[in-house]
Amino acid sequence: MTSIPGFWAVVPAGGAGTRLWPLSRAGHPKFLLDLTGSGRSLLQTTVDRLEPLTAERVVVVTGAAHAEAVRAQLPSLGASQVLAEPSPRDSMAAIGLAAAILAERHGPDAVLGSFAADHVIDDLDRFRSAVREGVEAARAGYVVTIGIAATEPSTAFGYVRSAEPLGVEAAPSARHVAGFTEKPDAETAAAYLATGDYRWNAGMFLVRAGVLLDHLATQLPALAAGLRTIAAAWDDPARREAVLAEVWPGLTKIAIDHAIAEPVAAAGGVAVVPGDFSWDDVGDFDSLAPLLAPVAGGGTPDDGARTLGDDSLVQRIAAPGAVVVPTGGRTVTVLGIPDAVVVDTPDALLVTTRAHAQQVKRVVDGWRDRGRDDLL
Amino acid sequence: MTSIPGFWAVVPAGGAGTRLWPLSRAGHPKFLLDLTGSGRSLLQTTVDRLEPLTAERVVVVTGAAHAEAVRAQLPSLGASQVLAEPSPRDSMAAIGLAAAILAERHGPDAVLGSFAADHVIDDLDRFRSAVREGVEAARAGYVVTIGIAATEPSTAFGYVRSAEPLGVEAAPSARHVAGFTEKPDAETAAAYLATGDYRWNAGMFLVRAGVLLDHLATQLPALAAGLRTIAAAWDDPARREAVLAEVWPGLTKIAIDHAIAEPVAAAGGVAVVPGDFSWDDVGDFDSLAPLLAPVAGGGTPDDGARTLGDDSLVQRIAAPGAVVVPTGGRTVTVLGIPDAVVVDTPDALLVTTRAHAQQVKRVVDGWRDRGRDDLL
Repeated sequence: MTSIPGFWAVVPAGGAGTRLWPLSRAGHPKFLLDLTGSGRSLLQTTVDRLEPLTAERVVVVTGAAHAEAVRAQLPSLGASQVLAEPSPRDSMAAIGLAAAILAERHGPDAVLGSFAADHVIDDLDRFRSAVREGVEAARAGYVVTIGIAATEPSTAFGYVRSAEPLGVEAAPSARHVAGFTEKPDAETAAAYLATGDYRWNAGMFLVRAGVLLDHLATQLPALAAGLRTIAAAWDDPARREAVLAEVWPGLTKIAIDHAIAEPVAAAGGVAVVPGDFSWDDVGDFDSLAPLLAPVAGGGTPDDGARTLGDDSLVQRIAAPGAVVVPTGGRTVTVLGIPDAVVVDTPDALLVTTRAHAQQVKRVVDGWRDRGRDDLL
Repeated sequence: MTSIPGFWAVVPAGGAGTRLWPLSRAGHPKFLLDLTGSGRSLLQTTVDRLEPLTAERVVVVTGAAHAEAVRAQLPSLGASQVLAEPSPRDSMAAIGLAAAILAERHGPDAVLGSFAADHVIDDLDRFRSAVREGVEAARAGYVVTIGIAATEPSTAFGYVRSAEPLGVEAAPSARHVAGFTEKPDAETAAAYLATGDYRWNAGMFLVRAGVLLDHLATQLPALAAGLRTIAAAWDDPARREAVLAEVWPGLTKIAIDHAIAEPVAAAGGVAVVPGDFSWDDVGDFDSLAPLLAPVAGGGTPDDGARTLGDDSLVQRIAAPGAVVVPTGGRTVTVLGIPDAVVVDTPDALLVTTRAHAQQVKRVVDGWRDRGRDDLL
């Protein structure tokens, strides 16, 4: 398999993954974790997945606090490939910064694809095939999103609605995008699924750097100008810090969906390529379970019990479906709580159930209210 | 309050407390633990409770493995007051050994009372009043048990059935015992409670040393002779170990209930003094809860949540009735599991519910089956 000429992967590595506390912490966020037991972090797996398409044309955008950890996990990346943001300015600034720097370095026709550092994808051939088509549609001037085949009426994701075929020969399955929607309620999600036109919006955008910057200049000219100013100074060690310090704090905080995808879709400039692979953003401990292998003693048929870590440390009795994460080194015993979630770390233990997994943010808020910032 | 002349408390300190694992371990059993948050272990509390009655006339009988820990917890006891058994030989040998040694040291009219080291009693005045009456009935030649007022039809305890008044002037509430019963089923327990004649048998026996040894000589002459042989050598440092090594391993393993209480009751020689105080043998983590104070955030009315240890380490959300034991120093969060039981220790974590508290023995068996004797 050959890489795609002129294609750069941009990997935004941000987000704390609060609902995966206490495994995920502000200082050691979700993308740095191995959540699948593969031995590689989500960030590493994301770069591994792209490598056949990009060779080493990858740029990671992350917070200054995490730049060192990112470099340590990805030693093959050069210094110029890790872009450290002085402070969080949401996804438009992160991806826009990468686009502006890539345009400076490689010209406006460089195609970039953004792929979040904390997602899990299993069918790599289908993923790569979708990216290849997406790059072709991007070369034709579109902002391209990969629309994931919805396997259930999820209320946890936004949706993209496809319209007529795009008509780009090199991207035969690409379609025009009729619009994007926010996370729907259950009834709406079921209706979406029934039509067959709606796919999950996984935030994977492919676009020529110049096209993205032109759209941004139209929609948010100050943000576009700020990013171009920073990009022009980025590779000059004498100037980068001073320009960043002056310009970065004033950049508009906005998601790329609102800044570009939605308005450009309304104007007919967005395409969708179907992605018929399994995808998950591993938002909480319930969604972690399907990514892990059945445990040795889980019975036949599989009782749903899962361990992230050393299962020899875990004893379950009458606890089918229990998810245990024994990172504290101690033994963990669960007796009589089906679908329990037990996450053991050296300084914090969480005990809940899979049905409560989406509420873990309340736990983090509770410790913050008590002044236990050391746990966050 | 003056102590009772010629009265010796015998405190059998044995039993692993398996259902309190992982707090209770073979090497650090239940009686050495502070299970009420008082700052004193159950053993220490037992001796504290008896002190006004005995001054320092207390003998503790324990396994050789625990003798050093017992002495460390009870520094006021002399070397002669901790009797170390070479191996477990059940309660008749333990109490009989103490009786034989007390008879050697103080004569056969010394009255002894046996009080297990791992029980919790709250109404100390009523407890001591019952013991004082019991000693008087014992002086009159009876084997005396203290019958605890049953507050519910428990299937966890044996029962003692009272008959006509004893007629001993100094023990006006004492009655003859019609018989003892094993732990009943629920229906039988309810019937017992309805009669008003049945009380819980807490294993508190009071008897003159000589009377006990005479009964034992009648019922189990070999055991009586063996204990007398050992007792005669006990206080001679040159002989104790040799005699113990020769005689102890051959002693009959039998509970005092079967060896003495039941056959002697059938012959009319057992009396019961009512004990109208609260009593618990703290068998599991469910029975621990009522002994602990409500937690600060438990709401009004009390939601039943309890912490044994530092409650500032514990956060509960939607977890009324949850019992948490944070001995590992880390924080413990319980989200959405009412009546959860979470016991955190440095090497073992247990997560269960109060309804499953009686099944914790299965957990210990499970780790033993896996060869994890270090956890037992």
